[in-house]
Amino acid sequence: MKRLGRSLNSALLHQSRQAQRTASAAPSQTQFIRTLSVLPSQAGAEKQHKQAWTQHLLRLGLGLGAGASLFAAYGGFSSSHCEQQASAGQTKTAQSGSRPIYSEDDVAEHATKDTGVWVTYQGGVYDVTNWVDQHPGGGARIMLAAGGAIDPFWAMYAQHKTAEVRKILETYRIGDLEGGADPSKQVADPYANEPKRHKALLVRSAKPFNAETPTDALGSGPSTPNELFYVRNHLPVPHVEPAAYSLRIEGEGLRHVELSLNDLKTKFKRHSVSAAMQCSGNRRHGMNEVKKIQGLDWDIGAIGSAEWSGVKLRDVLRYAGFDEDNSDGVAHVQFEGLDSDISGTCYGASIPIDKAMGSHGDVILAFSMNGRTLSTDHGFPLRLVVPGVTGARSVKWLSRIITSKEESQAHWQQHDYKAFSPGVTMDTVTEEDWRSAPALQESPVTSAICEPANGAQLEEGTEEVAVRGYAYSGGGRNIIRVDVSPDGGKTWHVATLDNPGQLPYRAWDWTRWHLDLPLPKDHSGPLELCCRAVDSSYNTQPDTVAPIWNMRGIVNNAWHRINISVRAEE
Amino acid sequence: MKRLGRSLNSALLHQSRQAQRTASAAPSQTQFIRTLSVLPSQAGAEKQHKQAWTQHLLRLGLGLGAGASLFAAYGGFSSSHCEQQASAGQTKTAQSGSRPIYSEDDVAEHATKDTGVWVTYQGGVYDVTNWVDQHPGGGARIMLAAGGAIDPFWAMYAQHKTAEVRKILETYRIGDLEGGADPSKQVADPYANEPKRHKALLVRSAKPFNAETPTDALGSGPSTPNELFYVRNHLPVPHVEPAAYSLRIEGEGLRHVELSLNDLKTKFKRHSVSAAMQCSGNRRHGMNEVKKIQGLDWDIGAIGSAEWSGVKLRDVLRYAGFDEDNSDGVAHVQFEGLDSDISGTCYGASIPIDKAMGSHGDVILAFSMNGRTLSTDHGFPLRLVVPGVTGARSVKWLSRIITSKEESQAHWQQHDYKAFSPGVTMDTVTEEDWRSAPALQESPVTSAICEPANGAQLEEGTEEVAVRGYAYSGGGRNIIRVDVSPDGGKTWHVATLDNPGQLPYRAWDWTRWHLDLPLPKDHSGPLELCCRAVDSSYNTQPDTVAPIWNMRGIVNNAWHRINISVRAEE
Repeated sequence: MKRLGRSLNSALLHQSRQAQRTASAAPSQTQFIRTLSVLPSQAGAEKQHKQAWTQHLLRLGLGLGAGASLFAAYGGFSSSHCEQQASAGQTKTAQSGSRPIYSEDDVAEHATKDTGVWVTYQGGVYDVTNWVDQHPGGGARIMLAAGGAIDPFWAMYAQHKTAEVRKILETYRIGDLEGGADPSKQVADPYANEPKRHKALLVRSAKPFNAETPTDALGSGPSTPNELFYVRNHLPVPHVEPAAYSLRIEGEGLRHVELSLNDLKTKFKRHSVSAAMQCSGNRRHGMNEVKKIQGLDWDIGAIGSAEWSGVKLRDVLRYAGFDEDNSDGVAHVQFEGLDSDISGTCYGASIPIDKAMGSHGDVILAFSMNGRTLSTDHGFPLRLVVPGVTGARSVKWLSRIITSKEESQAHWQQHDYKAFSPGVTMDTVTEEDWRSAPALQESPVTSAICEPANGAQLEEGTEEVAVRGYAYSGGGRNIIRVDVSPDGGKTWHVATLDNPGQLPYRAWDWTRWHLDLPLPKDHSGPLELCCRAVDSSYNTQPDTVAPIWNMRGIVNNAWHRINISVRAEE
Repeated sequence: MKRLGRSLNSALLHQSRQAQRTASAAPSQTQFIRTLSVLPSQAGAEKQHKQAWTQHLLRLGLGLGAGASLFAAYGGFSSSHCEQQASAGQTKTAQSGSRPIYSEDDVAEHATKDTGVWVTYQGGVYDVTNWVDQHPGGGARIMLAAGGAIDPFWAMYAQHKTAEVRKILETYRIGDLEGGADPSKQVADPYANEPKRHKALLVRSAKPFNAETPTDALGSGPSTPNELFYVRNHLPVPHVEPAAYSLRIEGEGLRHVELSLNDLKTKFKRHSVSAAMQCSGNRRHGMNEVKKIQGLDWDIGAIGSAEWSGVKLRDVLRYAGFDEDNSDGVAHVQFEGLDSDISGTCYGASIPIDKAMGSHGDVILAFSMNGRTLSTDHGFPLRLVVPGVTGARSVKWLSRIITSKEESQAHWQQHDYKAFSPGVTMDTVTEEDWRSAPALQESPVTSAICEPANGAQLEEGTEEVAVRGYAYSGGGRNIIRVDVSPDGGKTWHVATLDNPGQLPYRAWDWTRWHLDLPLPKDHSGPLELCCRAVDSSYNTQPDTVAPIWNMRGIVNNAWHRINISVRAEE
């Protein structure tokens, strides 16, 4: 548990140093050509830079990932701005006459904010000190590469690999790496062994792989077919040898336990739960229409439902000695996946202990999905399924479970999957903002229209249209009603719920619904259809997106609206 | 438990018959003057009547109570309509030449829909068969008086006692009671012994007493002073002799137990919980502004916070033998108060067993409020406090606790405190609507501005205004953020939370908040201030009231909006 005691930053820096040492393990015999690294203050230029950046980030709606994949924001940087920035870089180089040459050791000495933060990329040396705090993915993530090569990170977060991002990087160039890029250190593509995916998935990012269920396959049956179930990967997919797999369970109030797959399958009672899984960023596209956000441009398909089977987390924690009545301040259960970045940092998350241990929490360590062994993309051989809680906590390729007094300190728990007031932007967000907003757990009530398709054209004289969709609320709250409007919310019709009456406070599944929606009499021309759900706490959805817009683009649960039209008589 | 097995209707009819028998216990020696009671079908006239009624009900925003006090709707009937209706009544009488005379026994024979439903009032005989289903308080409540005098009911629901309602009643007159009104049966005012109340309370209905906390005393400290705490009574206040008091506990999986106050105070550990209490109808006024609703015209003060002390419900249920692990389908805990109507029907409600028995449910049988013995208005000597759940379930003057497979069948659980789609009105509501909507338990997230006052005039040149208010969410969900807008929701500022960080999933108290809100630069003239809260499930409030309008006017949790203005330079 020592590791938990350390702060995130020091842990990351430690890892960074280790990564760096590994990267430069081949003995370097280069001659030291010392060069003064003092540069004129770039503060003014940086501020301007940041503002332009942020404007672009917000203006662009490309397929951007959360957390680590925030880097994807680079992909959308407009070329006109980039050219401008690239020129600025050239001017700087010209001012210093010819580019200074630095050794790997010189660079390694610039791995903190005090010394300045240098990185190398393909033979170039860059001082990114002033960029650290502006990095859309968080400063801590840049610090992983501080004092060394960013090449392996860009291989991991492949969205960086565009001409646009490269041009921006050049604006930070301070010199060349002695000896140039070392071909022996060329980084292999960490995504070379990704599994094959169904071609109907709507891909929102290739590396890491993120894709959603096509709208017309969404909610058409109780479960989403495994092959069409949305995939949300933060990192390359790990490939696990089942025989070698073991799950480590440790932490406050537990004896350290290692369980093989066979142990898990034979020592515990099997349980199944039908539960929806939803990415926090589902429907981000609607927020992008208000103001652009970095993050994957999910439409309404980053949600699905499956029957998950495995063993109960509470049974496993009890097996490891956890005693609710003598838990001495244990408040969280942390999870780590086998998916890790170049520094060895695993995907991580945590949930409250009450959810984990509650008799009605129904948290499952799942082997299978809709009766079939988990696929690689969905967490083979074992994933967590936390019903009623946002997908980010249902850690895939589960490797470690830790009981603790504190939340997971992972990036995805602390610096992502939180929503702020609409006035908080990448320009203004503070550590206090991140600290004060709780990590998203239970999802708010939401719904979406799956049919008709947005943009559908109806025959002239159409008097009603078949509408169907899904609704879902976190925390086990049932959907008690779905209203659908043919006129932008002026009048409402009540939909029929296809699977009403889930267990109270354990309504983990989505609710599918349908109705034949009467259209305004003798209408031709455009119509705005919208839907909104009410859950068992009588919470309902906000009317519009703008007031709930947030810089990470999560929990967009405003009424879902689509535009259709009825053809006019000819 | 036999009583629970009976249907609501049969139980009510049974009670009605009993009440009737009691009312006519004095031997009647009147001569029978038989008169054919067949009248021409009134269906057409009734339909017109109902429509006019409903229009009026919806148009009027008077101080109307929920449940039993739906009768208050009568109070607002416009005189022009009433005169018209009164004329119609006279015409009918004129048609029959002279009024027929009926005995009490004649009337008693008309106590079902099959025989026709007759009632008497102060010497008049009325056939209200066609009115039963249109009664705003529900047909079952009229059936309590079927075949007998409505005088005691109107004494109980004193809102009927207006010239307007009397005129409407006359339209149903079919004759006179033999011997006229019997002065010996004059009904005493059931509200003659109501306690003294603080004069600062804003009274929304006198009989039963309903009053809210004045806005400027609302949320100004952690607890609401007991004397200014909102009062929501459905019936006359019962006066309880502490020494004679006993609490009866029975039902599925329990041994029958009777506990005195002393037993409760000595056999169980004491617990305190700081919890907000809110009437489901809080902020109904905002719905009335969209479309008029019967029900008390609550502004934002039907909410308060107190420290409640007593014993835990779960401890008492365990004492009575309840075993969660062998509870055999017990799903609800029902409660009855000592407040009852003329037929002996007690106020009743139920909550789910998981809330009652959950280790974090914190349901209290409370003796005291803010360190002082409960006042008569707040349930002396014992009331239920169900944190995170709408006030209607926190039964006052608690007399009986019943574990059961089924919900309470009380009017207030089955035919009130439920919300429908805005298209469902008193005209169109069906039994299926009532059946399909769940009884409100956990409240949705809400908030309100307590200062400045609505309509406040600010000095010219005012650049910012001190704003404060409350926010609350049911189900133990914490308030994580309150946003306040100076411009009707276009821009938002984050408020400071005065009491953040309640226990996760046990955030029973309201959250008070404040900020100095910057006003638009150099602004003069009107401004719309609004606030909205976000809870720990990231649920937030809907933007506007109209789409959540519902015929009972409950759970208005749209953004709270007030209008202020900044004086122009002179």
